[in-house]
Amino acid sequence: VSSEIKLGILGLGVVGSGTVELLRQNADIIEQKTGAKIIIKKIAVRHIDKPRSVNVDRSLLTDNSYEILDDPEIDIVCELIGGIDPAHELVLRALENKKQVVTANKELIAKHGTELMNKANESKLDFQFEGSVGGGIPIIQPMKNALAGNQVQAVMGIVNGTTNYILSQMADENKDFNAALAEAQELGYAEANPTNDIDGHDAAYKLAILSSIAFTTPVDEAAIYREGIAKVQLRDIQVARDLGYVIKLLAIAKSNGNGSIQARVHPTFLPKHHPLAAISGVYNAVYIHGDFVGDVMFYGQGAGSKPTASAVVGDIMDVARNLNNGSTGRVPCTCHELHAITPIEKIVSKYYFRMIATDRPKMLASIANVFGNCGVSIEAVQHRPISRGRIEMVWITHKTEESKFTRSVSHISILSVTEKIANWFRVEEEDI
Amino acid sequence: VSSEIKLGILGLGVVGSGTVELLRQNADIIEQKTGAKIIIKKIAVRHIDKPRSVNVDRSLLTDNSYEILDDPEIDIVCELIGGIDPAHELVLRALENKKQVVTANKELIAKHGTELMNKANESKLDFQFEGSVGGGIPIIQPMKNALAGNQVQAVMGIVNGTTNYILSQMADENKDFNAALAEAQELGYAEANPTNDIDGHDAAYKLAILSSIAFTTPVDEAAIYREGIAKVQLRDIQVARDLGYVIKLLAIAKSNGNGSIQARVHPTFLPKHHPLAAISGVYNAVYIHGDFVGDVMFYGQGAGSKPTASAVVGDIMDVARNLNNGSTGRVPCTCHELHAITPIEKIVSKYYFRMIATDRPKMLASIANVFGNCGVSIEAVQHRPISRGRIEMVWITHKTEESKFTRSVSHISILSVTEKIANWFRVEEEDI
Repeated sequence: VSSEIKLGILGLGVVGSGTVELLRQNADIIEQKTGAKIIIKKIAVRHIDKPRSVNVDRSLLTDNSYEILDDPEIDIVCELIGGIDPAHELVLRALENKKQVVTANKELIAKHGTELMNKANESKLDFQFEGSVGGGIPIIQPMKNALAGNQVQAVMGIVNGTTNYILSQMADENKDFNAALAEAQELGYAEANPTNDIDGHDAAYKLAILSSIAFTTPVDEAAIYREGIAKVQLRDIQVARDLGYVIKLLAIAKSNGNGSIQARVHPTFLPKHHPLAAISGVYNAVYIHGDFVGDVMFYGQGAGSKPTASAVVGDIMDVARNLNNGSTGRVPCTCHELHAITPIEKIVSKYYFRMIATDRPKMLASIANVFGNCGVSIEAVQHRPISRGRIEMVWITHKTEESKFTRSVSHISILSVTEKIANWFRVEEEDI
Repeated sequence: VSSEIKLGILGLGVVGSGTVELLRQNADIIEQKTGAKIIIKKIAVRHIDKPRSVNVDRSLLTDNSYEILDDPEIDIVCELIGGIDPAHELVLRALENKKQVVTANKELIAKHGTELMNKANESKLDFQFEGSVGGGIPIIQPMKNALAGNQVQAVMGIVNGTTNYILSQMADENKDFNAALAEAQELGYAEANPTNDIDGHDAAYKLAILSSIAFTTPVDEAAIYREGIAKVQLRDIQVARDLGYVIKLLAIAKSNGNGSIQARVHPTFLPKHHPLAAISGVYNAVYIHGDFVGDVMFYGQGAGSKPTASAVVGDIMDVARNLNNGSTGRVPCTCHELHAITPIEKIVSKYYFRMIATDRPKMLASIANVFGNCGVSIEAVQHRPISRGRIEMVWITHKTEESKFTRSVSHISILSVTEKIANWFRVEEEDI
């Protein structure tokens, strides 16, 4: 005989509607697998009379979230509002009232995850957030369970579909950034105000979550180094292709092996044979290197109503099993350590550097000298005349500390042969 | 304060050694994450004095498995012997003695999984086998948890590294099957007697496990249709490439939507843009299509000491958390249904068909007539003279029932223009 578990949902937008639809459509298999009937008791919305994409009995709706949070019958609160205000306050109240919590709110977890998980731990409550990263792709649960025995050495992800779509369009259709962005907006893949995606904030939220689990440490998303994709030029993508690379907005976290970690989001040159290089369009993927498992990658749709609902319902089922077994809180927060994030100047990487120079005797030597004097050694250089007396030069460095590289760039920028510093990017190696 | 959980390990071969090494090397993080010290109390081996790749105190070793199975102090039995005899009997005894069980034994699960899981369920014991499919890749746990809310429509996997290595070498280095096999044997990727891999048995075991979880039904591995890779000719791989395909040994299970399922292992033409097409060498990947999550793929090293140990230890940690919370058996066997496997003659697929014909008037029409009379329509045909009066013809059919296709082949084989039926393969579509 199945138990009855009562669910209250905050928010009936894109993810909320998908969640209601999934709970209804697959109710049979959910009950078979968990031994529980999941009953939606109440859904809190801002506007009760707004038309919905999902058919919901009006009596289920309330515009007062506290009817859910303060209802002693409700076992699980599912927060699908997004953003901080009022989600933060509501989730805190749910935990104070001893509700199990499932959320897909990346910003909330990135900014207040430690506080909320500690709160959940105090009362041995479940606090689950699989849907906050990578839409429907199982990634949080596998890191906390199947891969938990590994010392993770690196996590790298394509975790923002909007920017990946734009970069894919630039590469495949030879569009420039603005044209690709406009198309993404037309297709609904980018918002009217795309700043949150384009500038890498969304990816940084997700990296804060991934890296805190991977390295068992709280990670302050404000401390994550961040560069958006607006600086990527079509010419860089073409040069990348010629050199055997693609340009992807990567969220990268690595252990430095000395107790500190790197955490950064930026457009990156990635070898074209890397598994992440093939992830195109709105798909997401997360790549993990662990000391025993080696390389693993998880791939799928990183957003959208139905995929995210899949993750949310997976969490609800996990909580239902815990409620049935009296084992809520069985996988508590794993941030047992405190790792500092290395300042970006101190990371070690290869670099791509593109510039326009005046074609003059000793031009090449004068630039090479700057690199040499700054302690940066060069793996490859190529040049191409672009008009009378002007040369486009592309340099790929060996691995070097970022401060040495940027010092070189700063010196090169004031050389008399330098017409323009066109662009530079970090280059990821095939081996982590 | 951590609890102490006592582990007995059966077998100290490749996976056993990796497991011992991992439990030792990452003991700190395992204890932090589970709240349990995992103590290896005993390891059963066949030959106590055999040299080992891992340093183990001789007092831990026994050549009597029952010292583990019958020890009331031991909480978890980890079976890493492989094969059926004596693993089957030993695991049964462990369950009778109320031990939690972790195993990486694909053949055991494929052949006796239902019996063993029912036995575990009776006593609310954990019975875990993440390492039985895809080495270290999390796949069983995600299907049972994060993806559990989905109605799965298809599972397709590259789950045998040996055959994938051989096919990759044939494609990349233009080697024929025998040369690629010999190289795989030299490098230790194929066994001296490679039958189990080459003929698809290993992949069929894994498909039995994957499909039973995906479709919540017991799947008899003996009922899985199976073709090995020995029939793949270098010429087929070249033709595939020209047509935009790769040839992979796929383990495929699909829901027919009417309560029956398909389950089959065979070399398959796969569009080169399919995510599985890029999986090369000894890597494995499993691709799942669910009604809400859409497409997801899991990728990593499908075998080996350390990756498989990662999965085994992930399971041990899961069991440890259940022991600490009194919640063992919280994810029981999910085979609630009984789905028949469609006979291979009844499946619907596209087909690739290559033959040598005598160049004669009306030759093409006589072959096309056979297809037409059998109800098979043709998507594409190409021909190429290979010597005076002889033509190589390649046909790609539209989707058709397999019995109609094989009837065509049988009729074509006795046409007077037919010199030789060279080969044929099923073709997988991009959309599932």
